[in-house]
Amino acid sequence: MEVKKIFLPESEMPRQWYNIMADMPTPMEPPLHPGTGQPVGPDDLAPIFPMNLIEQEVSQERWIDIPEEILEKYAIWRPSPLYRAYALEKYLDTPAKIYFKNEGVSPAGSHKPNTAIAQAYYNKVAGTKRICTETGAGQWGSALAMSCALYGLECKVYMVKISYNQKPYRRLMMETWGATCVASPSTETKAGQTILEQDPESPGSLGIAISEAVEAAVTGENSKYSLGSVLNHVMLHQTVNGLETQKQMAIAGDYPDVVIGCAGGGSNFAGNCLPFVRDKIHGKEIDIIGVEPSSCPTMTEGPFAYDFGDTVQMTPLLPMHTLGHNFVPAPIHAGGLRYHGMAPIISQLILDNLIRPVAVHQMETFQAGVTFARTEGFISAPECNHAVAMVIREAIKAKEEGKEKVILFNWSGHGLVDMAAYQAYFEGRLSDYPLPEEDIKRALADIEPLPKPKQYRAGTI
Amino acid sequence: MEVKKIFLPESEMPRQWYNIMADMPTPMEPPLHPGTGQPVGPDDLAPIFPMNLIEQEVSQERWIDIPEEILEKYAIWRPSPLYRAYALEKYLDTPAKIYFKNEGVSPAGSHKPNTAIAQAYYNKVAGTKRICTETGAGQWGSALAMSCALYGLECKVYMVKISYNQKPYRRLMMETWGATCVASPSTETKAGQTILEQDPESPGSLGIAISEAVEAAVTGENSKYSLGSVLNHVMLHQTVNGLETQKQMAIAGDYPDVVIGCAGGGSNFAGNCLPFVRDKIHGKEIDIIGVEPSSCPTMTEGPFAYDFGDTVQMTPLLPMHTLGHNFVPAPIHAGGLRYHGMAPIISQLILDNLIRPVAVHQMETFQAGVTFARTEGFISAPECNHAVAMVIREAIKAKEEGKEKVILFNWSGHGLVDMAAYQAYFEGRLSDYPLPEEDIKRALADIEPLPKPKQYRAGTI
Repeated sequence: MEVKKIFLPESEMPRQWYNIMADMPTPMEPPLHPGTGQPVGPDDLAPIFPMNLIEQEVSQERWIDIPEEILEKYAIWRPSPLYRAYALEKYLDTPAKIYFKNEGVSPAGSHKPNTAIAQAYYNKVAGTKRICTETGAGQWGSALAMSCALYGLECKVYMVKISYNQKPYRRLMMETWGATCVASPSTETKAGQTILEQDPESPGSLGIAISEAVEAAVTGENSKYSLGSVLNHVMLHQTVNGLETQKQMAIAGDYPDVVIGCAGGGSNFAGNCLPFVRDKIHGKEIDIIGVEPSSCPTMTEGPFAYDFGDTVQMTPLLPMHTLGHNFVPAPIHAGGLRYHGMAPIISQLILDNLIRPVAVHQMETFQAGVTFARTEGFISAPECNHAVAMVIREAIKAKEEGKEKVILFNWSGHGLVDMAAYQAYFEGRLSDYPLPEEDIKRALADIEPLPKPKQYRAGTI
Repeated sequence: MEVKKIFLPESEMPRQWYNIMADMPTPMEPPLHPGTGQPVGPDDLAPIFPMNLIEQEVSQERWIDIPEEILEKYAIWRPSPLYRAYALEKYLDTPAKIYFKNEGVSPAGSHKPNTAIAQAYYNKVAGTKRICTETGAGQWGSALAMSCALYGLECKVYMVKISYNQKPYRRLMMETWGATCVASPSTETKAGQTILEQDPESPGSLGIAISEAVEAAVTGENSKYSLGSVLNHVMLHQTVNGLETQKQMAIAGDYPDVVIGCAGGGSNFAGNCLPFVRDKIHGKEIDIIGVEPSSCPTMTEGPFAYDFGDTVQMTPLLPMHTLGHNFVPAPIHAGGLRYHGMAPIISQLILDNLIRPVAVHQMETFQAGVTFARTEGFISAPECNHAVAMVIREAIKAKEEGKEKVILFNWSGHGLVDMAAYQAYFEGRLSDYPLPEEDIKRALADIEPLPKPKQYRAGTI
C-alpha cells in the first residue's frame, strides 16, 4: 500500500523558526510612523506589543529558537501531516504528484495557532495579563482565545458585529476557550462609542475592530494587542510549517516544482513557502504561487506603496502591495482573503520575482473545493479553496504538457465552521464578483506607489 | 520534551478487525424475526444488507481481514493519534496518567467513518449502487456521505426534520460530499406519507427516518440500507481503533487500569474497548466503563430484553439493554446518546460484568468539556464530554486514593459543528433532565426482560 500521510515524530519538530529577512535579496523598506513619516522604532511599538515580539519584528537573525514552552503547546497538533493526494491525482488523470500540508488538524481548525501560541507565550513572559485583538469571521480570534487559555491569559476579542451575529459558532469557540468576545463597534471603547454615535446600526468593520482592540490594549492594565497576519513576526512563527514540510518532502523523496498557497494577509502562505523561497534564492527552480480572490486583487493589481494596515489609519505605514486602505472588498465567503494589503515580506518577494501572484474567481474555488472533498475527503475552508483551485489548474496543465510535476500546497484549514458558504454555492447564490477596471482605478487613485526597488533576478546569489 | 502524541506509521495500521464474538464468555442470543419470533437468518436480512456484511454480522471468526481498498481510505486519517493529556493531569493535580485516542481527526470529525468506509466498500463490491440511511443530528449521515463519495456510490440520507432545519451544517457537509439529504418524514416514501397524513407538522424522529430509509432501500433499484451503530458488524469495524490504541499504549510503555467511552448505540465505545475486554477475559484487571446520559439510562436502568431497534417495529428483535422502543429521551444535546437501546454485544458484556455502565448528568458533561478545551485545546462533541466527565471523576478519585492509575478514554469526535450546545450551556439553558423513577417505571412497563443468562466471572477463562 502506498503511503498516504507523512508524519514526523515530535522529536523532529523544528527547534527554530526561519527568518527570511536574513536572506532577502532586496532589503525591506521600513515601516513609517503615521504622524512623522519617519521610520518606526521599537519604542513607538512598545505601547501595543511586548518588547520580545518587537525584537522579532525587526530581527535580521536567520534562525530564531522556539522556546520549549511553545514546542510543548505546538505538540498538541504539530508536526502536522503531509498528505499525498492520490485520489485527486487519479480523478484529474494527471501525471503530477500532488502533496498537501494539513494545517486543519489544530484544535482551532487552521494554521492560525502557529503564531497565536507564540504570541500568547511571549506576552506571558513579558508580564502581559490580557491580550486584545480583533477578528472578522473569527478564525484568528478563536486561535488566540485557545492560546490564551493554554497559557492562562485573559483574552478580549472585538468581533465585527455583522460576523458576531451571523457566525455564532466561531464566537462560541472563543467563549468555550474562556475569551470575552464583544460585537464591534462596542460601547466599551471611545472608538466604538464614536462610531455608534454616528451610526447606531453600524455593522462594524475590521478597521473599527482594530481601533477598539488597540485602544483597549493601550488603555488597559497589563494589556497588549495582537495581530494575526501581515507583520514580520507572524510570518516568522508560521515558518514552522514550511520547515516541517521540507523534512517531510525529503522523506517522500520528492521536491516541489510548484508551491501554492492562498494569501489574504499572507501568513499561511508565508508559513509554508518561505523556506522554499530560501531555496529559490539559492538557485532552486520553483514556481511559488500566491492565490488571491479576483474580487480583492491586492497582489495582482495593487501597486507596491506605503499604506495603512487598517482603514482608520492608526497603524504604521507599511510598504506593501495594497488596494488602498479604503478599499471595501466584495462580500465573498473567504473572509480571511478580504484584506486590502499584503504582508510586506510577501509584497517584497513578489517584486523580486520570487513569488508569483494569481487571482481566481470565487465560483472556481468552490468547484475545486467540492472536487477535493469528494476525492480526498476533507472539506476545505473557503480561503483554502483558492489554493485548491490553482492546484487543479496546475495539475491539468501538467497533463496537457505531459510533465511529471511535483505540486505542493498548503491546506490551511477545514471548512466545517464555514458550511454556510457551501450552502450559498449549492443554492446558486454565489457571484464571482469580478472587479471592473474602473473600480480598480478608483481604488488605486489615492495610492502613491513607491519607486520600484531594484529587482532581484533568481539565481544571482 | 515529553511526547504528547503517539503516532503509528500507516504500515502499522491493523490489517484485521477483531471480532469479540469468538471470545465472548456467554454466547450471544440470536436476533428474532419480528413476525415469526424465530431467529433471523441471513435470507431475512438479504433485502436490506449485502450478503458480505450479513456474513460479518454472524461471523464467529476472531480475526477478519481488512481489505486493501478499505485500508487505503482509512489512511486518510488512520492510524489516529493517541494523546497524553498532560495539561489536564496538571490542572487536576492527579497522579493518574490520562491518555485519549483522538478519533476527531477524520474528515467528518468523528469515529463514524470507521464503519461507514467499510460498509460503503462492501456494498460497492456487492454491486449496490445506492445506500440509504437515516440520521439524527447528522454525524452518521455525514460519515456515510463521505464514504460513498470516496467509492463513487450514491447516498440517500433521511434526516430527522427538526434536525434538518436546526442543524444545516451537517446537512451541508452531506451535500458537499454529494449525498442527497431530505427531511424526514418526506413525501418520497409510503412510511413518510402515512406520517404526514396523520400529522403534516411532524418534526420527525429517528424511528420514522429508519422506516423511510429501509423502505427506500428495499424498493429502490440496486439499493441497500446501512446502519451506523448497534449491529455486530458495526462494532467489528470500529475495533480498528482499539487495536491501534493497544499498539500505541505499548509504545507509551503503559497499560490502562481504566478504559472509558461514551455509549449511545455503543459503537465508539466498542471500537476502543473491545480489544481490552478481550484482555480482561484473559485475566487482565481493567475497569471498562461505558458512560451514558442520566436522562437516557439504557445500560444502568434498562433490563436486558428483546426489543425493536426502532420505534416503528420494523427491525428484528435484538437482545439488549433497552428502555423500550417507545421511550422518548429528553432533548439533551448529545444527540448520539439519545437511543433507547444498546448494542447487543455491549449489553451482553455488561451482563457478564466485563463492562461497567455509569450514567452522568448533562451539566457535569459540559463542565468537563470546557475544562478539557481550556487545558488540552480540543473542543469535544457533547457525546464525548460524557467520557471526559467520567475521566475527571476517575482522575480525582486517583488523587484521593493516592494511586498512579492509567486512564484511557476514547475521544470520539470534535464539537465544532455542535457549538449551539455550548451556547445553551453558557446561557444557562441546559437542564440535567434527571429521569424521575415513575418515568423509568412507565418506560419499562412494556418490556419483558429476558431470563438473565448465566453470568460470567472475570478471570475464569
